[in-house]
Amino acid sequence: MNEHLQKSLDYARKNEETFVENLAELVRIPSISTKKDNSKDMANAANWVKEKLTTIGMKNARVMPTDLHPVVYAEYLESPGEPTVLVYGHYDVQPVEPLELWNSPPFEPTRNGNLMVGRGTSDMKGQVVATLSAIESITKTGKLPINLKFLFEGEEEIGSPSIEKWMNANKDLLKADLCLNPDSGMLGEELPTLTKGLRGIAYYELWVHGPDHDLHSGMAGGAVHNPAQALAELIAKMHNPDGSIALPGFYNDVFVMTEQDRAEFAALPHTDKEYKKFFGVSELWGEKNFIVAERLGARPTLEVNGILSGFTGEGQKTVLPSWAMAKISCRLVPHQDPAKVTEQFKQFLNVQAPTTIQWELKQLSGARASVIANDQPGLTQMAKALESVWGKKPLYPREGGSIPIVGYFQQILGLGSVLTGFGLPGDNLHAPNEHIHLPTFHKGIQALIHFFFNFSTIQDNI
Amino acid sequence: MNEHLQKSLDYARKNEETFVENLAELVRIPSISTKKDNSKDMANAANWVKEKLTTIGMKNARVMPTDLHPVVYAEYLESPGEPTVLVYGHYDVQPVEPLELWNSPPFEPTRNGNLMVGRGTSDMKGQVVATLSAIESITKTGKLPINLKFLFEGEEEIGSPSIEKWMNANKDLLKADLCLNPDSGMLGEELPTLTKGLRGIAYYELWVHGPDHDLHSGMAGGAVHNPAQALAELIAKMHNPDGSIALPGFYNDVFVMTEQDRAEFAALPHTDKEYKKFFGVSELWGEKNFIVAERLGARPTLEVNGILSGFTGEGQKTVLPSWAMAKISCRLVPHQDPAKVTEQFKQFLNVQAPTTIQWELKQLSGARASVIANDQPGLTQMAKALESVWGKKPLYPREGGSIPIVGYFQQILGLGSVLTGFGLPGDNLHAPNEHIHLPTFHKGIQALIHFFFNFSTIQDNI
Repeated sequence: MNEHLQKSLDYARKNEETFVENLAELVRIPSISTKKDNSKDMANAANWVKEKLTTIGMKNARVMPTDLHPVVYAEYLESPGEPTVLVYGHYDVQPVEPLELWNSPPFEPTRNGNLMVGRGTSDMKGQVVATLSAIESITKTGKLPINLKFLFEGEEEIGSPSIEKWMNANKDLLKADLCLNPDSGMLGEELPTLTKGLRGIAYYELWVHGPDHDLHSGMAGGAVHNPAQALAELIAKMHNPDGSIALPGFYNDVFVMTEQDRAEFAALPHTDKEYKKFFGVSELWGEKNFIVAERLGARPTLEVNGILSGFTGEGQKTVLPSWAMAKISCRLVPHQDPAKVTEQFKQFLNVQAPTTIQWELKQLSGARASVIANDQPGLTQMAKALESVWGKKPLYPREGGSIPIVGYFQQILGLGSVLTGFGLPGDNLHAPNEHIHLPTFHKGIQALIHFFFNFSTIQDNI
Repeated sequence: MNEHLQKSLDYARKNEETFVENLAELVRIPSISTKKDNSKDMANAANWVKEKLTTIGMKNARVMPTDLHPVVYAEYLESPGEPTVLVYGHYDVQPVEPLELWNSPPFEPTRNGNLMVGRGTSDMKGQVVATLSAIESITKTGKLPINLKFLFEGEEEIGSPSIEKWMNANKDLLKADLCLNPDSGMLGEELPTLTKGLRGIAYYELWVHGPDHDLHSGMAGGAVHNPAQALAELIAKMHNPDGSIALPGFYNDVFVMTEQDRAEFAALPHTDKEYKKFFGVSELWGEKNFIVAERLGARPTLEVNGILSGFTGEGQKTVLPSWAMAKISCRLVPHQDPAKVTEQFKQFLNVQAPTTIQWELKQLSGARASVIANDQPGLTQMAKALESVWGKKPLYPREGGSIPIVGYFQQILGLGSVLTGFGLPGDNLHAPNEHIHLPTFHKGIQALIHFFFNFSTIQDNI
């Protein structure tokens, strides 16, 4: 084995506790991108990443403004002739509500056996710190065998609204051979994973307006269409009895799986029983003619993320509310266009909404799905890196989540992505008690060290 | 005209500003019965009423505990041979959310031309103060020509959960010839009104439980039945396409209107155009075969008073929520039994709820409807009193709201009620910017003075 590689791996093993402390430091910054109140925390998190990049030997580290939350850029270009990897990550996190369900404060990272609990530990501050730790292990023990660029954004959890414009304005700066995106995850502790596809997303608020003020339910009930009821009636019509989505034309552009695709899905390891356990349900649900892995990886969805109307506090209030609101998002699969889905949604509402209420559909974000090609540079090097650590070949699933930026890298920079990451299915992403499995975090650091060496043309003794 | 009556009416006219100031004092106490945090305010409001009763010459005024909020009792029994009127009222008010829609703070009563704005100004602190002001006008100018008892409760806005038990334990104390209940209202500024019927109520929370923790909508969406969607699907099935309610057997016990009933409803003054204006809607809604006044007065309803699930804050969170909750209440008409409706609701859920979720139905309160008999003592005296002030005969509608206590007075004490009150349809009861129309408030005081003299057997010179 290459001597520098060996030293890097040893360094990482010796510094495991320091890396976990670094992660805890970053988790303590409540960088919730969707809340205006947290904008100072966003700046602090961006700054933390910038400082860390400098500490581990990266050059020209800087915080660059966008229309909303800043981007952190850095580079290391001192390996002439070697390929350049653009490392992508995000330093923002999801909101933490409902707070009362957390067993420890979300921004006070807490050790619980092999786990560290806290918002962002897995998605994706843990992955960011794993990547920086791998690079530190290499730079502290020798010279980096490749070139690197870094793009850490602060808007991933809100659909990256500013990044497309920013990326278009910084095309030259971002030139690279490959994007390394560790914002994906593993299918299980012993199942190294390379994600081959990501769903897109279109996120909406649907408002239903009824009477121009709240009414007394006894004085008006039975004579006015209740907006909460009208919204419920609309939501109930958004799915067909077979679990499919009823927006007109919604499936027109949906890619049709090949025999090969379906065989790959069928080969994935999880049983229905395991899915039930991950999800904490006694029964699964969804489109009748597709297995669960297909529903999650290759089929579009429409989900209610939130709903609010009227009086929801303690006790009773006999109000007929004047409005009702639902947050609704669609996961999209290849060939679906978020703008077209918005039109389909509006068409659905035009047809289905009664004249007794007014509706308003606000699109909050939209991104196409993406699929990673088999000849993507870096894919075999990453597969080999994962195999070096876990001792087995990775699985190649398509993932249900959405990372809009993968599409932007492809469209704007012509850059393919390698999607990996070391979160596990039970990590409670976007939910209370989010955590990371620390042994897997450390294995991930080892795998990333292998990857950077594998991707170099200097392959002596590997 | 009886000289004392004339003096009383003059006293009331001279003291109009003082009466309005008294009302403002009581409105300033935020006596929200549904909130545990306001229990001290509840005690303060009860005490205010007790003190005022003593000030205007009533005897044995006292605050008496119940299982929840106290009752205020007082009496005046110094007119031997004269009938006894039990004056009923409530000193509690509805919650004030959404606060941002109030143009002035709800508990800082604010004059706006002829209106006074504030929570409880119309429902029913204004009616309580009008009644006390009428009695003050009589006692400060001579001797009361009848006997009085008083029962002011603090639980009307939450369905009077403790009052039935308390009333059963205090039957002798409450003996009277008639209950005067000014918690009803008028159909219009120039339309004196005597309410002949009130709907009952059954108030519920319906909980839908799905996964045992919040999930990432990308990781689980499409494979798990979303509880917010499942709740919407259930709510959508609670009404039939014709606007009727789909709980099995819901209409079995509903009283069937006679020709006479329907003629009385048809004779009521409001047009659909006026109803639209009151409600602030461009289109009405409801059971196809009934006019609006019938829908409000003689037909049962099922309303969503509130709904909550998942993320409802600013921005976006891609969560698949673990639960969803709706506050749902039914207005009931004569012969419907709230306990039976609860069984019908559960039967509906047993049949309609899918096995992919768990449901839980919590009943928060229940009360039967009530209808006032034509030979109810006091009815003609009140009709005459209203005619003396407005110069026209009153209307006799059935009202959509519910006052559970009217049923308890009948069932426990064998006591009939006269239902009146001086609120107007546009007063925003239970809603932001609740207000009272002060000229009508003052006319109401005059009418109540007339009533107390009319109900006395000492009828000389009237």
